[in-house]
Amino acid sequence: MQYEEGAYRDLGWAKIDVGRPARTGTAEAVYAAGKTPAQVAGALAALREAHPGRVAVATRCDEACAAAVRERFAGEPVLVEAGVCAVGDFPAAESGPLAVVCAGTSDLPVAQEAVVTARANGLDTRLVADVGVAGLHRLLDKLPELREAVCVIVVAGMDGALPSVVAGLVSAPVVAVPTSVGYGAAFGGLAPLLTMLNSCSPGVTVVNIDNGFGAAMAAARILNVKAER
Amino acid sequence: MQYEEGAYRDLGWAKIDVGRPARTGTAEAVYAAGKTPAQVAGALAALREAHPGRVAVATRCDEACAAAVRERFAGEPVLVEAGVCAVGDFPAAESGPLAVVCAGTSDLPVAQEAVVTARANGLDTRLVADVGVAGLHRLLDKLPELREAVCVIVVAGMDGALPSVVAGLVSAPVVAVPTSVGYGAAFGGLAPLLTMLNSCSPGVTVVNIDNGFGAAMAAARILNVKAER
Amino acid sequence: MQYEEGAYRDLGWAKIDVGRPARTGTAEAVYAAGKTPAQVAGALAALREAHPGRVAVATRCDEACAAAVRERFAGEPVLVEAGVCAVGDFPAAESGPLAVVCAGTSDLPVAQEAVVTARANGLDTRLVADVGVAGLHRLLDKLPELREAVCVIVVAGMDGALPSVVAGLVSAPVVAVPTSVGYGAAFGGLAPLLTMLNSCSPGVTVVNIDNGFGAAMAAARILNVKAER
Amino acid sequence: MQYEEGAYRDLGWAKIDVGRPARTGTAEAVYAAGKTPAQVAGALAALREAHPGRVAVATRCDEACAAAVRERFAGEPVLVEAGVCAVGDFPAAESGPLAVVCAGTSDLPVAQEAVVTARANGLDTRLVADVGVAGLHRLLDKLPELREAVCVIVVAGMDGALPSVVAGLVSAPVVAVPTSVGYGAAFGGLAPLLTMLNSCSPGVTVVNIDNGFGAAMAAARILNVKAER
Amino acid sequence: MQYEEGAYRDLGWAKIDVGRPARTGTAEAVYAAGKTPAQVAGALAALREAHPGRVAVATRCDEACAAAVRERFAGEPVLVEAGVCAVGDFPAAESGPLAVVCAGTSDLPVAQEAVVTARANGLDTRLVADVGVAGLHRLLDKLPELREAVCVIVVAGMDGALPSVVAGLVSAPVVAVPTSVGYGAAFGGLAPLLTMLNSCSPGVTVVNIDNGFGAAMAAARILNVKAER
Amino acid sequence: MQYEEGAYRDLGWAKIDVGRPARTGTAEAVYAAGKTPAQVAGALAALREAHPGRVAVATRCDEACAAAVRERFAGEPVLVEAGVCAVGDFPAAESGPLAVVCAGTSDLPVAQEAVVTARANGLDTRLVADVGVAGLHRLLDKLPELREAVCVIVVAGMDGALPSVVAGLVSAPVVAVPTSVGYGAAFGGLAPLLTMLNSCSPGVTVVNIDNGFGAAMAAARILNVKAER
Amino acid sequence: MQYEEGAYRDLGWAKIDVGRPARTGTAEAVYAAGKTPAQVAGALAALREAHPGRVAVATRCDEACAAAVRERFAGEPVLVEAGVCAVGDFPAAESGPLAVVCAGTSDLPVAQEAVVTARANGLDTRLVADVGVAGLHRLLDKLPELREAVCVIVVAGMDGALPSVVAGLVSAPVVAVPTSVGYGAAFGGLAPLLTMLNSCSPGVTVVNIDNGFGAAMAAARILNVKAER
Amino acid sequence: MQYEEGAYRDLGWAKIDVGRPARTGTAEAVYAAGKTPAQVAGALAALREAHPGRVAVATRCDEACAAAVRERFAGEPVLVEAGVCAVGDFPAAESGPLAVVCAGTSDLPVAQEAVVTARANGLDTRLVADVGVAGLHRLLDKLPELREAVCVIVVAGMDGALPSVVAGLVSAPVVAVPTSVGYGAAFGGLAPLLTMLNSCSPGVTVVNIDNGFGAAMAAARILNVKAER
Repeated sequence: MQYEEGAYRDLGWAKIDVGRPARTGTAEAVYAAGKTPAQVAGALAALREAHPGRVAVATRCDEACAAAVRERFAGEPVLVEAGVCAVGDFPAAESGPLAVVCAGTSDLPVAQEAVVTARANGLDTRLVADVGVAGLHRLLDKLPELREAVCVIVVAGMDGALPSVVAGLVSAPVVAVPTSVGYGAAFGGLAPLLTMLNSCSPGVTVVNIDNGFGAAMAAARILNVKAER
Repeated sequence: MQYEEGAYRDLGWAKIDVGRPARTGTAEAVYAAGKTPAQVAGALAALREAHPGRVAVATRCDEACAAAVRERFAGEPVLVEAGVCAVGDFPAAESGPLAVVCAGTSDLPVAQEAVVTARANGLDTRLVADVGVAGLHRLLDKLPELREAVCVIVVAGMDGALPSVVAGLVSAPVVAVPTSVGYGAAFGGLAPLLTMLNSCSPGVTVVNIDNGFGAAMAAARILNVKAER
Repeated sequence: MQYEEGAYRDLGWAKIDVGRPARTGTAEAVYAAGKTPAQVAGALAALREAHPGRVAVATRCDEACAAAVRERFAGEPVLVEAGVCAVGDFPAAESGPLAVVCAGTSDLPVAQEAVVTARANGLDTRLVADVGVAGLHRLLDKLPELREAVCVIVVAGMDGALPSVVAGLVSAPVVAVPTSVGYGAAFGGLAPLLTMLNSCSPGVTVVNIDNGFGAAMAAARILNVKAER
Repeated sequence: MQYEEGAYRDLGWAKIDVGRPARTGTAEAVYAAGKTPAQVAGALAALREAHPGRVAVATRCDEACAAAVRERFAGEPVLVEAGVCAVGDFPAAESGPLAVVCAGTSDLPVAQEAVVTARANGLDTRLVADVGVAGLHRLLDKLPELREAVCVIVVAGMDGALPSVVAGLVSAPVVAVPTSVGYGAAFGGLAPLLTMLNSCSPGVTVVNIDNGFGAAMAAARILNVKAER
Repeated sequence: MQYEEGAYRDLGWAKIDVGRPARTGTAEAVYAAGKTPAQVAGALAALREAHPGRVAVATRCDEACAAAVRERFAGEPVLVEAGVCAVGDFPAAESGPLAVVCAGTSDLPVAQEAVVTARANGLDTRLVADVGVAGLHRLLDKLPELREAVCVIVVAGMDGALPSVVAGLVSAPVVAVPTSVGYGAAFGGLAPLLTMLNSCSPGVTVVNIDNGFGAAMAAARILNVKAER
Repeated sequence: MQYEEGAYRDLGWAKIDVGRPARTGTAEAVYAAGKTPAQVAGALAALREAHPGRVAVATRCDEACAAAVRERFAGEPVLVEAGVCAVGDFPAAESGPLAVVCAGTSDLPVAQEAVVTARANGLDTRLVADVGVAGLHRLLDKLPELREAVCVIVVAGMDGALPSVVAGLVSAPVVAVPTSVGYGAAFGGLAPLLTMLNSCSPGVTVVNIDNGFGAAMAAARILNVKAER
Repeated sequence: MQYEEGAYRDLGWAKIDVGRPARTGTAEAVYAAGKTPAQVAGALAALREAHPGRVAVATRCDEACAAAVRERFAGEPVLVEAGVCAVGDFPAAESGPLAVVCAGTSDLPVAQEAVVTARANGLDTRLVADVGVAGLHRLLDKLPELREAVCVIVVAGMDGALPSVVAGLVSAPVVAVPTSVGYGAAFGGLAPLLTMLNSCSPGVTVVNIDNGFGAAMAAARILNVKAER
Repeated sequence: MQYEEGAYRDLGWAKIDVGRPARTGTAEAVYAAGKTPAQVAGALAALREAHPGRVAVATRCDEACAAAVRERFAGEPVLVEAGVCAVGDFPAAESGPLAVVCAGTSDLPVAQEAVVTARANGLDTRLVADVGVAGLHRLLDKLPELREAVCVIVVAGMDGALPSVVAGLVSAPVVAVPTSVGYGAAFGGLAPLLTMLNSCSPGVTVVNIDNGFGAAMAAARILNVKAER
């Protein structure tokens, strides 16, 4: 079997999977929630060491966590946006374009998590904001831009109707991201999640609620299809 | 207090609320599920007796129930469609137009329950079928017809996205009906129900899953606003 | 197709749908949750510019947001109530009356969101408070007032039983609003939501939990039926 | 400790708790679902042997089960109604009156399970059918009868609103039974169950969905309060 | 009809149902959650005025609310315990005994809400704490006390198993109160709620999660059965 | 790495994991639901071939499936009970005793699935039936037998209270199996599942609803602890 | 705007969206559930007429439906498998390879729906069956094959753990399909659905429960990325 | 019957079950949530008094609670870790080894609750951190260590896939602990809970979400099997 024994760095409380780029095409990212700021900074450092040419990324960072990262990587480029801490120079865009579309202004933070993550992974990424289905003409106006994209991430809360409409209009893969925007019977994003899983437009796939990061990683896999072959 | 004591017929196992038209503008209807065919036919007979000029309606009738109704009202006009048994001559359309729009062919039975109920209550009702959001042009093509309507009932299963789109395009009241069409994470209609409750288009109201009857009754109340004043 | 390309103002992070009054009869409102105070004020400004004769409305505003709105519109009339910021002179009541009924004092904030929104849209609106079904005589005492209304919004938490009772007593359209008032098995408003969706009184329609705004917008559509025709 | 060792009959596959009347005031009943007809008949026989003066009761019996019971107790009085098989002569009514109220005709089978069980336990039981809140006058008309009752069981499906209204009108204990009558968002009785648990009328208690048997047993405990002391 | 028109005090934002003692045997109580401290104090004042001989009760009071009540009723006896504010001299115990049993120490606050409410309504109430089923002998040791009670309230979180065990040991009515004590799959009290609704001991009835108040009100109705007849 | 490549038999539609006994101590079993009778019989044949000395087991077999197994293994010992088809001679009991306790007669089929599976895996297994908590003395009477067991499987539907009580009385590991016995708010076994996960007796572990097989496999792992060391 | 008005065939009860291949790269498919056999056959005929060179596909067909299709297209190639009716000659595989991996034999029908749909859309598709995580070596043995694939569909019921493991081993896009295989707390596929949405391997996307069709359509979009550019 | 009457200490608000070690092999632990710091310290003192040779343990302690414990037991060894307060000298490890495995660094606090509890009960416990299935080689690298363990506790949030993989590789009992780590459709740990209950690897048992304590107590029962016999 082709299993690479030992391809990780053991920090005791963590085992950084440094073999992941070779296996999956993208580096491990640090999920900051539930970790101490020191743990997040430490894990990023291990990633930087293992893959100096890649941007090391942590998601769901709060203020304290971002401060610890900034301090640890004082001399290096650190981008903090939408809860993402990205350490290292962003690569030039190598594949794309990827369109990240969001239904409302309140969905922007999730969309931005996707945008930052995608750019850190070398994707040519464009944001199209506030084109919810209550005013279809805003979306239809952007159709040429959407049809140019090789992959479309659609971010929406509340009714989550936007991915169905977009997927009926483009031929690219559509990755839908439900958000927890909404109240009452939105049930923390359950409503748009179910909407998207039941899309009447075939070929929509879905990631977890508020998971802009995961959508970008899926897009990276999809765009690599084109890039690598 | 203006309470009309005794304004019902007591059949023992049922108390037919014959005062309802005076109070609410529409007659009581018989919900057949869980009742015996004889009970359904008996309740319809009591309604016919109390209001000879109105169509007596039972919903959710199965074959046995429809047979019992046909037998009981052998000489009278009986319409059986989409689980509705309607006894009596349908009135001329007095108010409207009401548009009943459905997303897919599989949603048709629920839409037809709405159509039959609305017509039995004197509403000028038009059915627009199979205009789901996966092919928006089908819907946009019908826009003039929809904008003519005084009230629009929108029936959809799966993602339930259609009411949000319709309500962004018309000024009439939009009554949304989720259907149990779909599978898996549609959870028997829960998915489109939540979608519709969270519509990003303001002013959409919602009735129970598969409740074409209830949507038509809401439309009757809404159209009476115009008719009566 | 009659689609008005470009009928929106593009603020970059938002696309204000200024064509909405023409299409749906009511202006876009700003949903403040998840937006920065500056974004809310900016969106209201765009609405004011596009429709100087209309009240611009934002819902779910917290203190910081209200302060930003008051500052931005220093010389203009700004009403802040029940989380709603409304900028501009309220129109004279043009249609109605609309009755907003609530079951308990704890439901008042949601009812007031409905009242403010309705009045900002020109509806003659009356509030009937604390008439829950545990003391039916309080409700029955108000029956004449309720029967005068062209549309009735019923706001209730806990068991959510009030809309069923009201709809059995009046002929006007009944829009039910479940609230998150209650605890335990109220599950944040799920209990009254399900109650209302399953109302045994035909013709009740439902909006999202705590969605006083949406109920008022539905009422505006319903009352326009009368006004416009 | 006052524990009676051995106060049960061991049938191998069952241990009939013959000490229950002494401890709880009512005999064990056989829950037929998931048991074979022979098991049900056998358990009833053990109960009859242990307490010859009591009616032996099995609930949730299907046709095959009822046939097995009728055969086994060929010479004895057997009542089969609403899925209940009751073997033995019913006692004269010793305490009460108990009112069993149901909202609609479709709720009758559950109400009847309560009535039969209550009568088998010696309660003076009266059924008031079809007094749902959509036509309040039907209920108010029966108020004198309800106020006479020492305990009121209220059976309702759909919105489950009836117990709240009843409990606001009487001083007796109100035991609420949600039924699975309804469709869509009734979710098999979840909707009325939640309604009843959140009743705005203090003092309503609730049993399981469709559990007419359990409501009658609770009533027996309540009425024994009076009878025994 | 015997409806007493006007039997309430209209405070504008509230309609105090002063006819409730006559109808239901117990006074209206004030549910403080979602009300301002001034509203709570005002409602209590209206109750005191209407029924000077009764204790006026508000539940779910926080610190601010309790302070407002203490200030408003400076010269009168005010008891604040377990979130209950009770104004007025407690009556001598007239009926009972009522046993309030709780499974663990963490369930005590809910049990105490029941105890205070019951005593304010004149019930002779005894608390039996920390007798969960993990150590059955603690419960069995209290059996004589439990068997003396005319009604037993059983409060339990986590697995909610205690009411089933208690109801198998006593003949009195058992009112079960699930609590939100627990974590993870307790889901805020859903777990013990379902346990109790599915009790294998016939005759258990259930109130809402954490609803000590409601259980006491049910007990008051039950004990009145004995007291009044 | 010690990975055994190729340690499975490839049937095309299935890959029988013949290395499992070496890795996990127990053989793979066939989950018959969703497989054709021929597939089930074929998979059992592959297991028999690979491990002639072990009993080959399939669970969740219906009639057609059992017939196919009986036909395929015409000359061999085949046991069919509680949906289990077991092919081969049962081994002598090597470790134990294991007690399988069930709350009611309706839970017997699930308990029997556990018993048959355990015996096929060489465990000395004893069944204790119908000792639910509504009649505690039946359980306490069996305490000596339970305290002798090295592991106790407790099977219960409805309130699922039995494992908490048992685990408070014995020191052996307690594996709890919720069953789908019950109705209404039992929600197909969700109620006892949650009860058991929230047990107030520390050290109870839980398997899936109706999963007697899984409980027996867990017991086999536990008893092997003793046997192997 | 580039909207093609009229690009559908209006059958009255359906509007076949014949413009879909131009917009989305794949033809409309017929969802047979809830449609009559005649409707399914009619819709397929309209698709065949519009796009003679494409395979016309209907999913979720029962026996009656398949018979109607076979009769209607008597002289043409009709494939019926896994509930799919496909009319027309399958195209040569143009892009791929696509791997369809399933965890257990019981998941095969859903995997086959994916395989047939993918092949009908010209994808070079390979099935890898029964490689669930309980015997990892079966999966690791197939790793070379999986790493060759341009896209991997992973079908799994029960714990739904397989996609997380696969996505940690390959760089291609992973589309996860939860199935309703399992019982008890699988809740009709909810368990694997949630597992997959929460995958710890970044870049997994998910479609609806049992939605092999949808996964194949997503794969078609993804593979077109490579094919078209 | 062998029931030890009086084997508890009655503190009024609590009844410390001092007979539990004799019955179940482990001492009662104090669940601190919902108790006052004084109550927690008091309960620990009662446990220390009753069993001077055992470590007294309280779980779910916050800062205030830990401070109260430290103050009360000023001269004694007090360990505070992962919300556990343990008073007394830890015993030498008597049985084991027990492996506690966790999927990610964010799951560490729950794993540590298990480790501390297990060590306080005399188990030889080893922690294996951060071996989630997204990088299988990290886990496979630890296989020899896992196969040495007599019992394995597996702690995982998000997809909860790790226990299925581990149980396919070892023969020891596997106790799975879902954690609330994750967001969106993790629903506070519901996702990994369901995953684990539906494990395709037979013999996995599950405890409540985040219940490291309960898993350790189950391990203590399991290891006692070996130790005692």
